[in-house]
Amino acid sequence: MFRNFKTVERIVFGRGCFNQLDEILSEQRKGKTSSVVFLVDDAFESKPLKNRVPVHEQDMLIWVSVDDEPKTRYVDQLTAQVSDAMRAAGLEKPCGVIGIGGGSTMDLAKAVSLMLTNPGSSADYQGWDLIKKPAVYHAAVPTLSGTGAEVSRTTVLTGPEKKLGINSDYTVFDQVVLDPELISGAPADQRFYTGMDCFIHCIESLTGTYLNAFSQAYGEKALGLCRNVFLEDHPDNDDMLMMASFFGGMSIAYSQVGVCHALSYGLSFVLGLHHGIGNSIAFDYLEEFYPEGVAEFRDMMEKQGIDLPRGVVSDATEAQIEKMVDVALILEPLWENALGKDWSKIMTRERIRDLYQKM
Amino acid sequence: MFRNFKTVERIVFGRGCFNQLDEILSEQRKGKTSSVVFLVDDAFESKPLKNRVPVHEQDMLIWVSVDDEPKTRYVDQLTAQVSDAMRAAGLEKPCGVIGIGGGSTMDLAKAVSLMLTNPGSSADYQGWDLIKKPAVYHAAVPTLSGTGAEVSRTTVLTGPEKKLGINSDYTVFDQVVLDPELISGAPADQRFYTGMDCFIHCIESLTGTYLNAFSQAYGEKALGLCRNVFLEDHPDNDDMLMMASFFGGMSIAYSQVGVCHALSYGLSFVLGLHHGIGNSIAFDYLEEFYPEGVAEFRDMMEKQGIDLPRGVVSDATEAQIEKMVDVALILEPLWENALGKDWSKIMTRERIRDLYQKM
Repeated sequence: MFRNFKTVERIVFGRGCFNQLDEILSEQRKGKTSSVVFLVDDAFESKPLKNRVPVHEQDMLIWVSVDDEPKTRYVDQLTAQVSDAMRAAGLEKPCGVIGIGGGSTMDLAKAVSLMLTNPGSSADYQGWDLIKKPAVYHAAVPTLSGTGAEVSRTTVLTGPEKKLGINSDYTVFDQVVLDPELISGAPADQRFYTGMDCFIHCIESLTGTYLNAFSQAYGEKALGLCRNVFLEDHPDNDDMLMMASFFGGMSIAYSQVGVCHALSYGLSFVLGLHHGIGNSIAFDYLEEFYPEGVAEFRDMMEKQGIDLPRGVVSDATEAQIEKMVDVALILEPLWENALGKDWSKIMTRERIRDLYQKM
Repeated sequence: MFRNFKTVERIVFGRGCFNQLDEILSEQRKGKTSSVVFLVDDAFESKPLKNRVPVHEQDMLIWVSVDDEPKTRYVDQLTAQVSDAMRAAGLEKPCGVIGIGGGSTMDLAKAVSLMLTNPGSSADYQGWDLIKKPAVYHAAVPTLSGTGAEVSRTTVLTGPEKKLGINSDYTVFDQVVLDPELISGAPADQRFYTGMDCFIHCIESLTGTYLNAFSQAYGEKALGLCRNVFLEDHPDNDDMLMMASFFGGMSIAYSQVGVCHALSYGLSFVLGLHHGIGNSIAFDYLEEFYPEGVAEFRDMMEKQGIDLPRGVVSDATEAQIEKMVDVALILEPLWENALGKDWSKIMTRERIRDLYQKM
């Protein structure tokens, strides 16, 4: 059985295409309700983009904080905030939820759009195909590129028990607006770490056991674009990075990430490290698994003048390290992709502990 | 304004995934009607694939002839045949139209699915965005790769006046089933000419004036895969060719084909040449426009042992050549993409005539 892959139905790409968002949303406003909810990274509260968000009178604009990675509690709180406001206005639901920001903001938009139609807490749906009802129409406007959140079927959430995505066809955005101009203002280190998310998941998927020609075609091109962006100098680096992220996300259709992502989830859950930097920290210690990829990653760090944090685990308690190991070990498909069916003989608790203790 | 590109919503890729078609269609059978119409290239009437088409009692299987390229008259006739059968069964419409075959068969499936919901003749809709109502659910199962018909927003038809596609977001398939096993049995020359459709439209789009990073990423990878397939030997050539076709089709989102496709339309309209071979014949005389592409094309012909037909225009009458020029000149976006805004100063009727007379 091969996955019948659900794609994003509408894609607009181009410098300045953010200006088309209002027109795109006008189609959605024609139904029972015309209220749109914009979830926007609060980093833009003091930036010119603020005044370009096409907010109508009946809409909600919520500045979201992504200082922490998205938590199920935060998703539930945002969902309640939207539901309460809709109820107060005599409406059932908004006609759309639009995420404007990086991977965390996009994941919040996905999760809120799902939770507006599915009862309970978002923590109940962490896993694979647990969502029963289609989400409210939801669209993404990335302002950072690399995660692939704009095309993936997951929204990665940190819950009370685990860091795990809501993986569902209903999670996939209905629309993405890919405007390379929006990513040009990101801080250099954030841009790098987010870009490395793409680079690393390409290395993991291309060397994994799950790969087929579909994912290989997307993964190879995404990897090539990462090399263009981080090892060379091109005037259209932003355009290329945006495409790398998109292709990297598509490559996951028939592949999986691997050792680095599994370890990075543990770092994020216990130490609160953001996904991109967590990946980068872990990857630097994975030469035995990905020798060429790690060498290239170090070239990219050097070329981009990035100074990777060291010793992030040194202050962790014994219990914290054990929890990291637990979180990493849950992610069986990632280990199987990286190391084959007998992965658990190769990747013991002890070996994972040793890796964490180096970081 | 950038096009808000409509994608195929569901894609399944993998060796043997054709076996999943019945399950995929079961979702569609749950509505008002459960009748599916299969349009299958009649080349399979005597092949084992015949017995693998998941035809239920209430379904129609129509063997379609693609000896000629799809004509509007044939589309209208097939549409009437389906409508009559549905009416006789007390049904309004089928719940799906499935095309199993190469580009021509896929285009017939697209066109019939559109004409089941839009009144009049398919010739009325040749052009851009003339379709008013969504099509019946339609899916593609390619058995030849290269045209990109599985992902494009056009169905190319030969009408009484012109060869021109029905270009519409509604034309796009709802589902594609990409099973590389299905293309392995195609005759070598047909495989080559269809593959060259992909190679040539990549060359045309990558050297054109319309290109952006989205189309470039898809086009470059498609071109690389064509090189893998036609200049090297790989055990998974079929998988790669299928992906090349898919990527080549996606690359057209923000680009256009060029000189070769424009000339090839004239050859097809007047002489009835199939699109792939028409492209190949024309391309071989376009060294002045695409020097590197033509050199590589010749290497591919040599490596694949292909003997290109020559002198196909030599018996054409004066009136026929004039008509070819007319058909080619209608395609303004193609010329503009290839030669820029002032294309009509560069590409005179005389120059097009001269090119045709060489072929």
